[in-house]
Amino acid sequence: MQERAKATRRSLLEAAAQLFAEQGYAATSVNDMSARSGRTSGAVYFHYAGKEGIAVAVVQDRFATWSQLAARYADEAVPPVERLIALSYDIAHALAEDPVTRAGARLWAERATINAPLPDPFALWTAAATRLLAQARLAGHLYAHVRPARTARTLVRAFFGLCALTEALEGTAVVTSRLTDWWQLTLPSLRPQPVCDDLPTDR
Amino acid sequence: MQERAKATRRSLLEAAAQLFAEQGYAATSVNDMSARSGRTSGAVYFHYAGKEGIAVAVVQDRFATWSQLAARYADEAVPPVERLIALSYDIAHALAEDPVTRAGARLWAERATINAPLPDPFALWTAAATRLLAQARLAGHLYAHVRPARTARTLVRAFFGLCALTEALEGTAVVTSRLTDWWQLTLPSLRPQPVCDDLPTDR
Repeated sequence: MQERAKATRRSLLEAAAQLFAEQGYAATSVNDMSARSGRTSGAVYFHYAGKEGIAVAVVQDRFATWSQLAARYADEAVPPVERLIALSYDIAHALAEDPVTRAGARLWAERATINAPLPDPFALWTAAATRLLAQARLAGHLYAHVRPARTARTLVRAFFGLCALTEALEGTAVVTSRLTDWWQLTLPSLRPQPVCDDLPTDR
Repeated sequence: MQERAKATRRSLLEAAAQLFAEQGYAATSVNDMSARSGRTSGAVYFHYAGKEGIAVAVVQDRFATWSQLAARYADEAVPPVERLIALSYDIAHALAEDPVTRAGARLWAERATINAPLPDPFALWTAAATRLLAQARLAGHLYAHVRPARTARTLVRAFFGLCALTEALEGTAVVTSRLTDWWQLTLPSLRPQPVCDDLPTDR
């Protein structure tokens, strides 16, 4: 029974995420979620207390994704700045391809029209970036004046803006290549090495 | 008569911009614009063909602002990179304080819910940044590998993301200081000088 409830919750969340990503919050109804998932409207109210509740859960689920992504970059054998760079490409990929991540980003952009407080989707990512930069600093891989928390805050906002605007203006196909342009414009300020020539240009 | 029509158009545009900035596109009606401006609803339809038309005009007016801002930075006596930096602080200030600019940004974020194609608000700013970077490159102020058009595209997207997310997460009061963090993380990649110590931290 608990397994069945979990499966229902997941199927509702994924149906809602697809709809939010495709048509936005305002245009998506509980009936749409029921039709897309093959579950009843009552199940949406029972498991998520309605449309606002499932929107918050979608954004929270995206959090979880980012946290799991960050955990995959705990390998101490790889230099921390390289792990930060690899993580950024994975998040950019999720923002371009993963329905729940895409729905989370769209809901966050439409947050003014949602009658429920959404969790801050950037706090955990900033924390992960701060940790990696602090490790890099300790290892002597950064310029001495680069401060991890402040730099992580700046990087996360610029990174997210770059991904969001690139998708809006040019579509998702070029996000990897534009992210490489951005790292080439950012890395020389972080560390003494010259421009990186081995960053990806597509995937 | 033509002066009176101009005054009516301007008063409707400013009332609509205030409302769009405060409550978003979906929640704003032509009746609200009429009540705020003291003009008739008929005037909205006559001068702007309705709500979509006035939304497009608000975004276009913001264009105009950016173009005028760029024109103010044509003084060849000032090094082009310094002009680009000064321009960025002025645009950040307009995004934080000017009602029409704020409305343009909010409408652009809500563009999926607006039943009319909005003009790209970044094209002119990217063109202005490209021009200034090309001048800087000619003057030998940039690293040789920095390419003006590609760099301008990256800078504009990261800059706008930084301003938008800073306002959303922390409010407008700290935008200048966060923008300085961003330039400190970006300038060393553009030119040989060390970190700039004379960037503003509030205004």
